[in-house]
Amino acid sequence: MRVTEMLRRDCDHIWDRIMEHPFVLKLYDGTLPEENFRYYILQDYNYLIGLMRCMCVIASKSDAKLMQKTLALAQSEATTELENYQKMLSAMGLSIEDAISAEPAPTNVAYMNFLLSAAYTKSPIEGLTALLPCFWSYVEIAERNKERLKNNKNEVYRAWASVYLDDGAKKLVEDLRAPVDSIESYSDAKEIFTTASRYEYMFWDMAYNLERWML
Amino acid sequence: MRVTEMLRRDCDHIWDRIMEHPFVLKLYDGTLPEENFRYYILQDYNYLIGLMRCMCVIASKSDAKLMQKTLALAQSEATTELENYQKMLSAMGLSIEDAISAEPAPTNVAYMNFLLSAAYTKSPIEGLTALLPCFWSYVEIAERNKERLKNNKNEVYRAWASVYLDDGAKKLVEDLRAPVDSIESYSDAKEIFTTASRYEYMFWDMAYNLERWML
Amino acid sequence: MRVTEMLRRDCDHIWDRIMEHPFVLKLYDGTLPEENFRYYILQDYNYLIGLMRCMCVIASKSDAKLMQKTLALAQSEATTELENYQKMLSAMGLSIEDAISAEPAPTNVAYMNFLLSAAYTKSPIEGLTALLPCFWSYVEIAERNKERLKNNKNEVYRAWASVYLDDGAKKLVEDLRAPVDSIESYSDAKEIFTTASRYEYMFWDMAYNLERWML
Amino acid sequence: MRVTEMLRRDCDHIWDRIMEHPFVLKLYDGTLPEENFRYYILQDYNYLIGLMRCMCVIASKSDAKLMQKTLALAQSEATTELENYQKMLSAMGLSIEDAISAEPAPTNVAYMNFLLSAAYTKSPIEGLTALLPCFWSYVEIAERNKERLKNNKNEVYRAWASVYLDDGAKKLVEDLRAPVDSIESYSDAKEIFTTASRYEYMFWDMAYNLERWML
Repeated sequence: MRVTEMLRRDCDHIWDRIMEHPFVLKLYDGTLPEENFRYYILQDYNYLIGLMRCMCVIASKSDAKLMQKTLALAQSEATTELENYQKMLSAMGLSIEDAISAEPAPTNVAYMNFLLSAAYTKSPIEGLTALLPCFWSYVEIAERNKERLKNNKNEVYRAWASVYLDDGAKKLVEDLRAPVDSIESYSDAKEIFTTASRYEYMFWDMAYNLERWML
Repeated sequence: MRVTEMLRRDCDHIWDRIMEHPFVLKLYDGTLPEENFRYYILQDYNYLIGLMRCMCVIASKSDAKLMQKTLALAQSEATTELENYQKMLSAMGLSIEDAISAEPAPTNVAYMNFLLSAAYTKSPIEGLTALLPCFWSYVEIAERNKERLKNNKNEVYRAWASVYLDDGAKKLVEDLRAPVDSIESYSDAKEIFTTASRYEYMFWDMAYNLERWML
Repeated sequence: MRVTEMLRRDCDHIWDRIMEHPFVLKLYDGTLPEENFRYYILQDYNYLIGLMRCMCVIASKSDAKLMQKTLALAQSEATTELENYQKMLSAMGLSIEDAISAEPAPTNVAYMNFLLSAAYTKSPIEGLTALLPCFWSYVEIAERNKERLKNNKNEVYRAWASVYLDDGAKKLVEDLRAPVDSIESYSDAKEIFTTASRYEYMFWDMAYNLERWML
Repeated sequence: MRVTEMLRRDCDHIWDRIMEHPFVLKLYDGTLPEENFRYYILQDYNYLIGLMRCMCVIASKSDAKLMQKTLALAQSEATTELENYQKMLSAMGLSIEDAISAEPAPTNVAYMNFLLSAAYTKSPIEGLTALLPCFWSYVEIAERNKERLKNNKNEVYRAWASVYLDDGAKKLVEDLRAPVDSIESYSDAKEIFTTASRYEYMFWDMAYNLERWML
């Protein structure tokens, strides 16, 4: 069995909860209040910056080949994904300045700093392991909720979701899984993959509850 | 006014809440359930490791003089403080192995990764700014609760608290404040100091609620 | 006067020597032995990898805007420049595998490790300062030797040199100079710029002497 | 065979040259001109700072146990070794300020930046591998030249050399070898150990030739 298949299976209990999270279900059937989506988009824009930062650290420690791959991934986030976000933002009546000035919520900050810390203290492949649940779970969510999406009346939500049904998104997951499959220590990888999976769940939960700092 | 005085004043609203947190008050008057203290000690032991890690990153980017200072600080944490923790642990019927195997709770993980990320991405002095609220607030808590401590019947709590009334603790805070006073951008420093202060509050709250991962 | 103009002027004594280095003059008039160019191309390919690594570290520590700029720069090196090198290599009867397996010479290793160390220990703008002499001196060399190039009979050398006469190359230098112009400490910047300028000179000298490890 | 024994044996050709370097032989028999020793001490003081920096990076990426070991090693360099250097400096009519203001020579800079780059881009154990030749070769030099030292009339040279005959120095080497023996990829370790060994040779050579920057 592929290492990434084992990682995915060992986190079934978390991923099941991700798939069933009300934010996810309502986003796909179109019943999610726009306030929640607006909050999500603003947070996710900032998360994307953190993701790119993490990819830069990983690239900087990789051999020439993996460095080029990771750099290309970061650059595609910096262009395609950020462009996509700009469209989403404007469809929701928000500007890029709103996104930049939005304060990252506690769970978002914790997730970004976890990614950066993993990238800095661990090996490049362990760093990629931390990134994997984000890309992978979005594709799995999209596949599982294809039917639900058909009846979704919210154009913006449909546009948002369609990105993760794309072959490009699936290929990206495969590109990330390949190096992780060659990881040396399974137990270390499992710890990293589990924490990242937990943060994926918590991120949806944050957006569902419009999380704010306590003080 | 010293930069660190301004930082402290600008975070009054957070520090007031730290000073009044029930965990803090009950710890000082001796009414804190031992379950909470046990939880706290196990988490704080792990936090101390994260703190040392952060100091190592800061030292590695500093000029020779500041590197030596930061290194000495890290080494004193690694010896005096860890020894102190070993005493606390055994007084609470816990071993060092219990501490090592204890899973860091979400708020603890978030705080440690914030410190490490600040140390890695920012200047050495901004890194020290992130460390300051931890050391400083413990000394301020100790001073404000001196009277409360006198009636504390719990020997372990009294022993724990006495460390922060010590001149050594006060000197440490002064040693950290000195470089931070020379910081270049006040607004960046304020953001860092604020986030660290928030985490200090959240850390007490975590221990009061025996926080666990959602899943 | 712009900070980068001061830096350039304060390194006149080094840049004059760069401009007059026999490797440079012979490369532009076409009299450079192909053995030297072959050596140079193999070393420079590896240097390019080191340059990209350094850009990744700088990007990882920058704010969102500078991160995106630096990332785009790294990605353009990873695509346009590496492609250009593949053409050069094949024109010289060498393959990409030859380049990958070529052992970096002492001066090349020293230069790459200097860039990486500066990127890791210093601020992002100081990191960019370390990169500047490489990009800038190539453009200045090209401008100063335009006439010489006209009589160059070596097609490969002419193709190589034409890249640095391009407006794209000039714009790149300007893009790098802009953030460096806003640097905080001139004396620190000068030290970094001077060391990088020295390494530029030493790199040409290394290629002229076909430098090898002593043992 | 222990991994470190293999590494040592595979670098025989370099270590033989280190053992026979005229700087080393003359230092041990007392015939080394004081100008060379003065130069060496000033450079080595700066190298020590670079060594500590490298240890901090390694510590910051290590698990709790290895972090504490590496931190203790860095702190012992920062105290015992630096003190030792202060004695040496003053015996040679130099002050600590002379050492701080001495410009690191090219080989010294290259060696320090190699160590830092290895510590940053590689695993903690690979970082320790880069440090090993320095500590180990000094002890081997001391053992091989014990007899030569007996006739050494230069008190300062004798005092300097006696440090590396000490059991503490031997124990330090053993403490460093232990983690390196558990390294995962021998070929990567060999490359690192070889480069560090080369730099050890080049460092003696630098001091013998009073190396300066070309311009």
